[in-house]
This record gives sequence, C-alpha cells and structure tokens, in this order.
Amino acid sequence: MSAPKILALSGGIGGAKLALGLYRVLSAGELTLVVNSGDDFEHLGLTICPDLDTTLYTLAGLANPELGWGRRDETWTFMKTLESLGGESWFRLGDGDLALHVERTRRLKAGETLSAVIAAVAARLGIQATILPMSDDPVRTRVATDAGELAFQDYFVRLRCAPQVRALRFAGAAAAAVAPGALAALAAPQLEAIILCPSNPYLSVDPILAVPGMRAALRSSGAPVIAVTPLVGGQAIKGPTAKIMGELRLAPSPLTIARHYSGLIDGFVLDARDAALAPQFALPVHVTDTVMVELTDRERLAREALSFAARIGRRA
Amino acid sequence: MSAPKILALSGGIGGAKLALGLYRVLSAGELTLVVNSGDDFEHLGLTICPDLDTTLYTLAGLANPELGWGRRDETWTFMKTLESLGGESWFRLGDGDLALHVERTRRLKAGETLSAVIAAVAARLGIQATILPMSDDPVRTRVATDAGELAFQDYFVRLRCAPQVRALRFAGAAAAAVAPGALAALAAPQLEAIILCPSNPYLSVDPILAVPGMRAALRSSGAPVIAVTPLVGGQAIKGPTAKIMGELRLAPSPLTIARHYSGLIDGFVLDARDAALAPQFALPVHVTDTVMVELTDRERLAREALSFAARIGRRA
Repeated sequence: MSAPKILALSGGIGGAKLALGLYRVLSAGELTLVVNSGDDFEHLGLTICPDLDTTLYTLAGLANPELGWGRRDETWTFMKTLESLGGESWFRLGDGDLALHVERTRRLKAGETLSAVIAAVAARLGIQATILPMSDDPVRTRVATDAGELAFQDYFVRLRCAPQVRALRFAGAAAAAVAPGALAALAAPQLEAIILCPSNPYLSVDPILAVPGMRAALRSSGAPVIAVTPLVGGQAIKGPTAKIMGELRLAPSPLTIARHYSGLIDGFVLDARDAALAPQFALPVHVTDTVMVELTDRERLAREALSFAARIGRRA
Repeated sequence: MSAPKILALSGGIGGAKLALGLYRVLSAGELTLVVNSGDDFEHLGLTICPDLDTTLYTLAGLANPELGWGRRDETWTFMKTLESLGGESWFRLGDGDLALHVERTRRLKAGETLSAVIAAVAARLGIQATILPMSDDPVRTRVATDAGELAFQDYFVRLRCAPQVRALRFAGAAAAAVAPGALAALAAPQLEAIILCPSNPYLSVDPILAVPGMRAALRSSGAPVIAVTPLVGGQAIKGPTAKIMGELRLAPSPLTIARHYSGLIDGFVLDARDAALAPQFALPVHVTDTVMVELTDRERLAREALSFAARIGRRA
C-alpha cells in the first residue's frame, strides 16, 4: 500500500459512515483508521470488537443495511439454538459474524496482536485501507450509572442505554500503549489531515484519546485535526450522544463538543441546521449538511472535510 | 427420573442407533448411557464432544438424517464465513451445532463438570434418559499411524482414516476418574442389563474401558453384560472398524470382537449373516438381524438385546 495520507479516528456505526466516505474518495492505501476498542468485550468465551468489526464490514461492503450492525445476508441459527439451550442471548451474534469472533479469539490466544488479527482480516476482505485498534492492549469502557458501574456492552446493548450515566472510565487505558501502526501513521511526514469522525465523543473517541501518548502523537503530527459534528439540531443522528450529554450536565450542542476537543482540533465541521452557532466557535468552522443517508452523502462529506483540512493546512 | 434399569456403553453414530432403540422401548428414566469422550477435542477454542453430541441429538430427535452427524435443519453460514477468513474448515460445524460447543465451553471454563453440562443440555432438549461422559476428566484418543501419532479427529475427520493404524492410546486415561454418575448407575441394585452398543471396540468402547475403575464397576454389577456386534459379514456398517482391525493384524470377525471383550461380557449378539460362526463362541450368543436401517429396526434390536440379557440373568 502507498503511504497514509489521511488518518481518521472513529467509533462504530456513525463514524464508520464517514470512514466509508473517506475510503471511497481516497486512493488505495491512503487511509488509516484508528478505531475505538474500548467497547470490546469478552462474551461466550469470545473476544468481540464491535467498532472494529463494524468498520471492517462497512469498508468491505458486507455491512447489514437493515440492522445497521453485523453482516448482510446473515443467518441466525446459532443464536436461536443458543437460546434454546438456555445460553445468553442479549448480544445478538449472527452465524457469519460469529466466524470473525471465533477466528479472532483463536489468533489472540495463539499470541497474535489485535492489530495483526485485524490487518489479516482486512486483507482477506480486500480492504485497501489500514484499520487499527487504538491499542493492542485491552481497554474496557466502564459506565458509572444510577444502576451502578456497568461494562460498556451491558450498558449499551443489554440495558439499551437506559441507566443514567454519571461518569465514564476506560479501564486498562493507563497501562495501554498506542498501537504501533497508529504511532507510525501519525508520525508520517506526508500525513495531510486527521479527521475525528462523527462518533460519540464520550463513548467512542475519548477511549481512543485516553491511551497514553495518543493525544501527544495527534498534536505532534503537523497535519490539521478536524472534528465532524455528531450532533445535528441538538440530537445525535445515531446513538445516545445527546442523552448522555444531558446526564453529564452538558448542553447538547456542537459548541460543547468543540470545547471538549479544545487543544486537540484545528477545525470543526458544523451541520447547516446549526449554522447560527458558527460565530460562537473559537476556531475555523465549515458549515454543511452532515447527515449521511446515501452513499453519495458520505462521499461528499468526506470530500468537504478533506478540503476544509487542506484550507486550514499544516501547522508550523 | 426413576432408577436406571439399563446401562449402555456407546460411541457415536453406530452406537447411538441402538441407544435410540433402547431409549424408545424403555420407560422414562430407565436408560443410562455412558458415552465415549475420548474423541472430544479442542478446536477453534471450543471443546467439542462428537460422540456425546451425536447421542444428545439422536435421542432428542434433532439428528441430521442426511449427514448422519450434526443437527437437522442446520445452516452453514459460520463455516462458509470462517473459510473466507482463512480459518480452519476441515471439521464441519453447523451454525446450530456451534451453539452447543460455545455454551459447553463457557460452562466448562466456569468450572462445571462435563457431566453437569451434558445433563443440563439433555434436560433442555427434553431427553428422559441419563447421558454421561465416561469421565469428567479429559481423555484424548491418540492414533499411532504410519504418518506419526495423530490426535483422534486429525486421523478420523481431517485425514478420513486414511493412515494405517499401528496402535491406539488414551492420553489422560490413567489419571481420569469414572464419571460419578456412571459409578452410581453401575452400582444400582436394580440394574438389569449392561449393553455394549455396536460401536467400534477399539476407537469407541476401549477409551471408556480405559478409565481406571470402569471395568471393575462393570464386573461388580450383577447385571449381565451383552455386546452387540459392530461387524456384519466382515464389514462395519459404519466407520473404519474392519479397516483398523486389518491394520492391527486382527481378523475382522465378530469372534475377534468377542475375544476382545472376554472377561467382560456374558453374551454376544451376532448378525444372522454370521450365524455360521455361532458354534465357535465360548459364551451365549443371540443371532438376529443387527443392521438398523429404520427406526423399527433399532427398537426391535433393542428389545432382542434386552430379552437376551434377561435370559442370561444376573450373575451370582
């Protein structure tokens, strides 16, 4: 592959939409994605990496268009049978999806790094971008709620984000190292832009930033860092961003998000529905339609984010 | 369940046919099956128990009638996807079948015994018989061949029994204990018969007999022990029994099998095609059609084996 030109930080479904747009408008090998692994978890003896897998499936054209997660053309015999045996069925695993979890778990147990496993799968799926976990070390997002502290998937899937969030912590982050591939990509002199995809800042991007050395590596790169808003008109297109912001006593506004990323980002992509807020930003803003319904929306938003970054240019 | 009246030793497919016959002609709770776990293996991070699972599926009416193994109404998305990811695909695992392996592996890792896991699954599947592994400790059949020593499933499935067998050993057997449920069933005063199902004596029954204390428990029971021939006209109905006997320099005859079980059995069920051999047996013989094609064949053979055992009666 050619050297990375664009690096994007992303969580799962929302972020992967823009990641796909970037992938499609860039040439083979130009895109590196650093993906949240804080929502990885151990379930049924398997290591499951929801955000990485959503990214893999999305870029490979294998994502399930109806569900928004998992694989297309999926069957559900495993889950149905597991239920009949009294097994845990709150986390829905399709038969094809399961193959990735089983193969990953086998390789991790054999001593491969998560980066190596994801790279091998991406190659198998014909993906011409570099997909990296933020770290090869386990980091696990824990959600302090009114119902006690919960593992992320317990909160997110089993309890459907119903508990009130009080705080988030990223267990293992302090001892984790940035994935070597991510450090190398961030140090590449030809890197032209770093994009924070429109993922949940608290659940999806913060775990990435919590890995020691990640913020410094982002800032050390001369490439401009651009955040794309995950909020439109005070609401998240997908997921509980606005709900969680409310519970954390934060105004559910793109301004809050920009402040959250202050010191890290050089520009902010704001949705046209929030254009009135633009003058209040303390940094360059690009206003556009950020809602990605069709594939063409993803490509257009990707192109606009890249041009915006090019306009801002490299830091001295 | 009521107290066990009949105990049968069985391997996989061939043995499970008679096991099903016994199950159908007996009342709920009267049958205890002690099943070979020597062909259990660890694969893709899962503990897979082929003979136990074939027994579970057969008694639950879930066995795949076309394949002869696995579950009926099965899908194969997992296997197909695993292959596309470059995973190992020589051992075919259906999507529904996989649920049992994942759930079993999870429970074993949580500290449950194999007996407890199988009992729970059997109860879930509505099976009104006791199905027990020969031991809760891992015993692994190893096949010494002209291609070196092989794990059983490597020999049996991956290499399709092609290598020439020189010897068999049951790794872990010396340190294994008979499953407590099997000891209890064998010690039950009301036990009326012990049946060695028409499984491969070397691959399926010998591992059971290799567990220290199993032979003694069989002999201590007052119940007559009856073997049903796995050979008909010098051939096995299913599997490599005759091939292996040739490779071990044994005449592929029911007489060889009876001699192999000598000191253990009190009667032998011989196929009508081999009736001419009957006078050469040193113990009571019942001659009948032992080929089980239809369900009625299984029930008839089960009834005949039970009457034969009743005619022989309890030992003093």
